[in-house]
Amino acid sequence: MNLDNLLTRIKPLDDNAMQLARQRQDVLTKPQGSLGRLEALSIQIAGITCQSQPKIRQKVIIVMAGDHGVVAEGVSAFPQEVTYQMVENFIQGGAAINVLGRHIGARIVVADLGMAVEVPPNPRLIQKKIAAGTANISRGPAMTRFHATEALLAGAEIVEKEIESGLDILATGDMGIGNTTPSAAVAVALLGCPVTEIVGRGTGVDDEGLRRKVAAVARALEVNCPDPTDGLDVLAKVGGFEIGGLAGAILAAAANRRPIVVDGFISTAAAMIAVTLAPNVRPYLIAGHCSQELGHRKMMDWLQLKPLLEMDMRLGEGTGAALAISLVEASCKILSEMSTFAEAGVSGKA
Amino acid sequence: MNLDNLLTRIKPLDDNAMQLARQRQDVLTKPQGSLGRLEALSIQIAGITCQSQPKIRQKVIIVMAGDHGVVAEGVSAFPQEVTYQMVENFIQGGAAINVLGRHIGARIVVADLGMAVEVPPNPRLIQKKIAAGTANISRGPAMTRFHATEALLAGAEIVEKEIESGLDILATGDMGIGNTTPSAAVAVALLGCPVTEIVGRGTGVDDEGLRRKVAAVARALEVNCPDPTDGLDVLAKVGGFEIGGLAGAILAAAANRRPIVVDGFISTAAAMIAVTLAPNVRPYLIAGHCSQELGHRKMMDWLQLKPLLEMDMRLGEGTGAALAISLVEASCKILSEMSTFAEAGVSGKA
Repeated sequence: MNLDNLLTRIKPLDDNAMQLARQRQDVLTKPQGSLGRLEALSIQIAGITCQSQPKIRQKVIIVMAGDHGVVAEGVSAFPQEVTYQMVENFIQGGAAINVLGRHIGARIVVADLGMAVEVPPNPRLIQKKIAAGTANISRGPAMTRFHATEALLAGAEIVEKEIESGLDILATGDMGIGNTTPSAAVAVALLGCPVTEIVGRGTGVDDEGLRRKVAAVARALEVNCPDPTDGLDVLAKVGGFEIGGLAGAILAAAANRRPIVVDGFISTAAAMIAVTLAPNVRPYLIAGHCSQELGHRKMMDWLQLKPLLEMDMRLGEGTGAALAISLVEASCKILSEMSTFAEAGVSGKA
Repeated sequence: MNLDNLLTRIKPLDDNAMQLARQRQDVLTKPQGSLGRLEALSIQIAGITCQSQPKIRQKVIIVMAGDHGVVAEGVSAFPQEVTYQMVENFIQGGAAINVLGRHIGARIVVADLGMAVEVPPNPRLIQKKIAAGTANISRGPAMTRFHATEALLAGAEIVEKEIESGLDILATGDMGIGNTTPSAAVAVALLGCPVTEIVGRGTGVDDEGLRRKVAAVARALEVNCPDPTDGLDVLAKVGGFEIGGLAGAILAAAANRRPIVVDGFISTAAAMIAVTLAPNVRPYLIAGHCSQELGHRKMMDWLQLKPLLEMDMRLGEGTGAALAISLVEASCKILSEMSTFAEAGVSGKA
């Protein structure tokens, strides 16, 4: 796969399918517009899929894992070994994302984009390790530009393969101790706002840890000077392998006209990179939930997305996106399964 | 069944079960508190059900229908016949609540508490008609105090019967052309706030219709002077049969320690009556979503409830509650299905 080729495959939504979906919503047995965002969602999915009555059957949550050299700066409340331990937990089915994936009937796809440890081959773990963790972004670039492209293409390849197996909607998830730090750096680079408006407590650092994290992000931007008009440069200098993988997954889903439910802070940083690389991606995105992590709302605003859920969550893994998938699925069922006024013999407005 | 008896059966939540649930949430493989409202929900359900790991399997959405004499004042955008036509639609499975009920795996129970028309017997429609529609509240009381008690007990009986068939969670839904008008009157009576802060456009009246609606509610309160300390008086004077039925359903669910997901504007008016009759009901309630109908947020505040969803919906039928049930169910699955740090061999905070 070639990156430029992938980017040019992403096209605008289909106006015709959206118009047909809107017309149908307006004759279903309910006051026009009374299902609010459910109606808007169904119309968006119609535009994405070019189908006036789209169906969402095969749901996939991709969880990408990676490690981060910046943990040396003391930016996380948990030790780095937890990245791999949690990936094991995903594989065993005991993590939050497994529970929520089962609840909504989605399959979970777990991939190693760059964990620090070498892991034994496992059929339930896709192996796409670019390197054993990024370099420390507060001292230099996270990765080379070549590795950034590799991460994007690896994520895209995973999605293209899942599409072959059947994928009607994609949700993004992440695992990587320390990954709110590079995600914050990506956001600050693209938003051009003060570091303190974005950096939050992640999995729960104390005040001292938060100060270290703010300093690490500030230094990362100072040392690396990422170019906000070049998504690849931002990813390479202050990103992460799983962030790149998720950005690539988003690009591939959009190129294949599949809706993407973006999870929390890390996934949103990945979506910002994807949109910087290919602005046409934006209307393919659905914001799953608003994270408790400080800068998330600002990042959503930049993407012009309004989160579906606000559950005070801040776990990542794709947990917010998983809950939101169920709402998107419901919106499509409303569009195709409800009776019209004529079919049900219900009188219209007086 | 006797109303006083029903009210005294409603007891506080079980602190012990809540403490056990909280302790377990704190050792599951995620940063403490990182699932936000999902964690809080699971703990609430534990307290309601007296089970430290409650399961939500049998989900029931009760849709109660009734008609309203106040439609003579021109307060609705749709003609009264739509109440029965939509009940037919519920029975046929073509309405929004049917689609969403199927989506979340809930059974829909439809009951006639006081539609204007006589309907032929139908095994899929529970017949509990108190009278053929209420009287016009802008000219006098909606119903007698006796009929108000009957409506409450009818709703309670429906729920007790459903509990015999299996009911782990109840969602409330409504159908009744014109019923945002009595619901607004109930809310204004209990909140003691200006009519214009509560009355909204319902299914979509124009500016002229809205003025008529505001005037009708104002007159209803002036003519009837409902006593805000007496839930039965408020229901009888400015309520409706389906509103009373829903209030009774809520009381019975709480008396049987079942969680109740309250839907939009009409269901919330019913919940306010239930809480006025038995303050112990409050912690059994879960707010499904915030309606677009003007005064709904104020009513939620009065109930000290924070809606789970804000989807710009304003349909009723239980549609917002249906979507929220899935979140409550997910919260209980998180509590019982996730691995602990010890089970998964994941390291804790550094």
